[in-house]
Order: sequence, then C-alpha cells, then structure tokens
Amino acid sequence: MRNLITDVAGVKVGSAHDGKLASGVTALVFDAPATASLAISGGAPGLRDAALLEADMTVQQIDALVLSGGSAFGLDAVGGVQSALREIGRGFEVAGQFVPIVPGAILFDLANGGDKSFWGEPAYWRLGKAAARAAAADFALGSHGAGLGATLVDLKGGLGSASARTPEGFVVGALVAANAVGQATIGETPHFWAAPYEQGDEFGGLGWPAQLPAGALTLKMKGAAPQNTNIAIVATDATLTKAQAKRMAVMAQDGLARALRPVHAAMDGDTVFSAATGRAKGNVDALALTTIGAVAADCLARAVARAVYEATSLPFAGALPGWREKFAS
Amino acid sequence: MRNLITDVAGVKVGSAHDGKLASGVTALVFDAPATASLAISGGAPGLRDAALLEADMTVQQIDALVLSGGSAFGLDAVGGVQSALREIGRGFEVAGQFVPIVPGAILFDLANGGDKSFWGEPAYWRLGKAAARAAAADFALGSHGAGLGATLVDLKGGLGSASARTPEGFVVGALVAANAVGQATIGETPHFWAAPYEQGDEFGGLGWPAQLPAGALTLKMKGAAPQNTNIAIVATDATLTKAQAKRMAVMAQDGLARALRPVHAAMDGDTVFSAATGRAKGNVDALALTTIGAVAADCLARAVARAVYEATSLPFAGALPGWREKFAS
Repeated sequence: MRNLITDVAGVKVGSAHDGKLASGVTALVFDAPATASLAISGGAPGLRDAALLEADMTVQQIDALVLSGGSAFGLDAVGGVQSALREIGRGFEVAGQFVPIVPGAILFDLANGGDKSFWGEPAYWRLGKAAARAAAADFALGSHGAGLGATLVDLKGGLGSASARTPEGFVVGALVAANAVGQATIGETPHFWAAPYEQGDEFGGLGWPAQLPAGALTLKMKGAAPQNTNIAIVATDATLTKAQAKRMAVMAQDGLARALRPVHAAMDGDTVFSAATGRAKGNVDALALTTIGAVAADCLARAVARAVYEATSLPFAGALPGWREKFAS
Repeated sequence: MRNLITDVAGVKVGSAHDGKLASGVTALVFDAPATASLAISGGAPGLRDAALLEADMTVQQIDALVLSGGSAFGLDAVGGVQSALREIGRGFEVAGQFVPIVPGAILFDLANGGDKSFWGEPAYWRLGKAAARAAAADFALGSHGAGLGATLVDLKGGLGSASARTPEGFVVGALVAANAVGQATIGETPHFWAAPYEQGDEFGGLGWPAQLPAGALTLKMKGAAPQNTNIAIVATDATLTKAQAKRMAVMAQDGLARALRPVHAAMDGDTVFSAATGRAKGNVDALALTTIGAVAADCLARAVARAVYEATSLPFAGALPGWREKFAS
C-alpha cells in the first residue's frame, strides 16, 4: 500500500503545473470506466460535465476526473484530459465517435502571487493534457498539480492523499486539493484537526494537543478572497451503483468537516467526487456501504492533513509558509 | 442565556412523550413566521411538508418545526402541531383559511422496548398537539420528547440543545434528537467526539482523552436496525433569505459529522432544519453567513453531546445505559 488513492485497483493519478503561473492540474484516470457520482457542499462550486453524475442521469461510468487550479478558467483542463484520452482511444461510444467522459472541478488560486496573464492561450488545457499523460500509480503530494497554488488562511495548502481498507476488505482512497477558507490546524498550534484519524506519523504524528489553547475555536478565515474551495475525489475498488457512489460522496464530505474549520461555506466550492472501479466483486449492502463511506471520510480527513503537511511555500514575497517551514524547526 | 435554542429570540420549544410507548415529540414554535430551509444528509429520510423548504419553492416562512419518534408513523405529529396552532389563529392565509406551515422529521425508535401497539389511534398526533401547547422558553434535555425513545449504538440517546453568539452578534442555537447508528463517545471511553467544542462543563468537562485508545476508530454500529436518524434544528435571530438558511443547514450538518461516528449513512435519515427569526436586523454578507453556519455546526455538535450526557435509560430489560449511569460513578 502506497497510502495513496492509487491503492484502489484501476486508478492512476498524474499532475502537471507551472511554477510561474503558481497553479496546476491533477488528473485521476481510470484504467477502465468507473461508476461515479459527487456531493457538492460548498455554496460556490465550479464544475464541468458534472450534471451527468447525479443518480437519475443516464451515463453510469466515466473515464477520468480532474482537479484544477485557475478558478473557472481552470475548467479548460478537462478538455486537455479529454484530448489525452481520445488519443489512446478511450471514451463513451456515440455514433462511432468516442467521447471521454471527464467531470472536473476547480479551486480559486488567482490571488496567490503567480503570473496569471495567460489570457491569450489555453494554459489549463495544456496542463490538463500533461497531467493525464503523467498518470501513474505514484504521484507527489504537497505543492504539486492542483495543489501547487492552493492555500489555507494561515498555511500553504496542497495536494493530499491517503488510503485504507474497510473491515469488509474493500480498498478506499482519497485525493484532495486543500485550499480552504479556514484552518486545518488548531489555533496557533501545529496540531491538525484531523489528528484523531492519523495513521502512523503520516502527517507528523503530533496527535492532539494536551489542552486546547485559548481561542482554538476562533474562526480564522480568508476575509478578502471571495472564492476558496476544497476539491476531492474518493474511490473504492468495490462494485457500487451510482446511487451508492452518491452516498459515498456525501459521507466523505464529513472528512472535510473533521479536518477543516470552517468548511462548506457560502464562498466555498467544496465538492467531493466519488468513484467505484468494481475490481472487487461482491454485494455491497447498506452496512458495507456505510463502512466504505465512513472510511472514505477518514481517508479524506487524513488526505487534507497530508496535503498541508507536505506542502512548501510559493516563491513569492508574502507567500504563506508551509507547515514544516513554520513548525518543524 | 439558557444555553438552549430558545435563546434565539422568537423561538419556543415544547415536548410531550409517553413512557409506555417509549417515544415522544418535540415541537419548535416560532412566535411569528420564520424563514426556513433544510439539509438532508442521510440516505433514508422521513419528512412531512418539507419539499416547500427548498430555496426555489414559493412559501418563504413557516410556523413551527417538529421532531418526532415513531418512524414514519410519527409524521402524524405534524398534524397535531397544526391543530394546536390553528386553535390560536396561526397559519398561512389561503382563501380566508389559515394553514399552519409545519415541516417535520422523524427518527426510528420502534425497537427500543416500548409498547408500540398504537395502531388504532393517532398517538403521535396527540403527542404533537401536546408538545406544541407546551412550547416555552424552558424545556428539558435528555430523555424527553423526541429524545425519549432515542438510542445510539452503545448509550441512550436523547434531546439536546445549545446556543452561542457569533462574532457579529447574532444568536445561534441548535436542537437535536440524537439517535445515531454509531457513537457519540470515543471507543470505550466517556470522552465525547464533540469535546473540542464544549463550553464550560456542559457535557461533563472531560475534554479529550490524553491518548486515543486502541480501536478508537473501530466503527461500532447498530447492525440489525434498518433505520436510525439524527434530526435537528438550528436557528438564528439574524435576517436570512431562504437560500442563506439552506447554507446554514448545510454547514450545521458538519456539527453532526464532528460529534458522531459514523453519521450520514445509507440507513440514516439525518436531517437538519434551519430557521431565521429575523429579530436581529442588519445585512448578512457571505462572511457573516459563514460564521452563522460555523457556529451552528459548533452548537449542533455540543447539542448532540448534551443530549447523550443528559439522557437516562429506558425502564426495560436490556435497555442501553445513560452516559451518567455508565460513566459517572
């Protein structure tokens, strides 16, 4: 186990980013079409080709998912991923044409100090294509791909991932670009809100603070930025219906609730995609679905903390520090 | 401040229950119609007259909200509350008739040992009427009203409430009938998952365990019961639009995520109603709305722990113990 979402059989992840732009794209490509859905819990989502993921819509399976920086401009990245998949013959057949089905979501990173003068060219389309081509079992966490430009209110955000096995034996993983309006850590301490869910020392092993510091619950938020967003994917090797995948996504949102304070706000686009590759056969009843959802929530909470733990600051004046830069001295 | 949802100006709460039935009803009555919405995060909700709460529906304000035991039978309680309100001239005027607008939600407590042979009479209708008539600023927590029949997997559930003030000065409160498929406490310890949010010693003041016990994350769930549900109301004295009330409800669900493990499962009906009485004037921008939502989540997490902390066991063989009976020795 790599402790990555790619521990789920049939899942590969690739990232591409541009240091000058201070933004990037992460693509999750399925080896074969996967059943998928989503849960949108933020008030300001930015999505492309996501309406089809509702349980009452016709298309059941998709080819890839995209997490991108760039706010609504970043939705171009989906087209780049589609281009890469079309070149290798992937897609849903319609009248002899193959259309790769690729939903995507974006986060707001336009105010992070990077050079955002990409108006004349499809910058995110190119990054999306490169990300899809880079898809592999191993990929880097922290300041990479869709996490390169991500920030929290007080620390650098990033790309995170984690995996686990449910009691029934299904593998579950999470991938997140953590770009929250608030905090992943408690007050001024280095302790993560996600500490109860940590496995080993995957994000420093500090545990819970002996005592909650005064003001630990004081809300610290990016007051001036109108848009922020955590975008995530949870996946399992179980065989789920689309409606069951929806339930998995709803439960996984609880991982964001446990790892971030606050989250799901009016100005957030917080979205969790869910996917089931079906490599593990066997009936998934309500109880097994609940454990898949609960473990997905755990993995997503851990992925958020790992994203922040692994991130390094952007090379711009006034950039927010990475967790290690601030605390590991 | 009573540390109850009735700290929100314009809100009164009443409960009624039947010890032999081991179930009951809690009604929240607004002094004047309040703007309301809801967020449904469980996979098996039981609701009455709730479709109108979506932001795109016409009716903007409601007269009362109902939390009831009795599974789908308990939806009769809404009729009883309407009857009590009609007698005092409350309601939405339609062609000279006054129709009290009263959405409600139920929880599953049919397997808690009580005498459920009420088939021949509208037991919950009567309890609903009595609950509405009892509405007042003071009301009891624990094994009362909709919380009388409630259980978790390992402890008695109950009725809980809490309140707080946002940095902008708005009062926010929460009311919950905690009847979860899982746990509110950590492993075998008396510590609540909601500990970080506790104010004073409102649920025992034990704080967080020095170390998470082995197996703390092992999922403990009511395996045999097909239905469980946490039903809740969050309210504020702020002036919100219906769409803003929806956002408040979505964010408040994070309080359930932080207080319960697991929650929002396939067999849960977890629903949070939200309401704004508008007694406090002033613009609520995205930032103020976010603090209202975040504080509502805190209050709901605290209300869950208070529900469990205050509950006492049902007088039946094999009944689950109350928190104090199990731990406060």
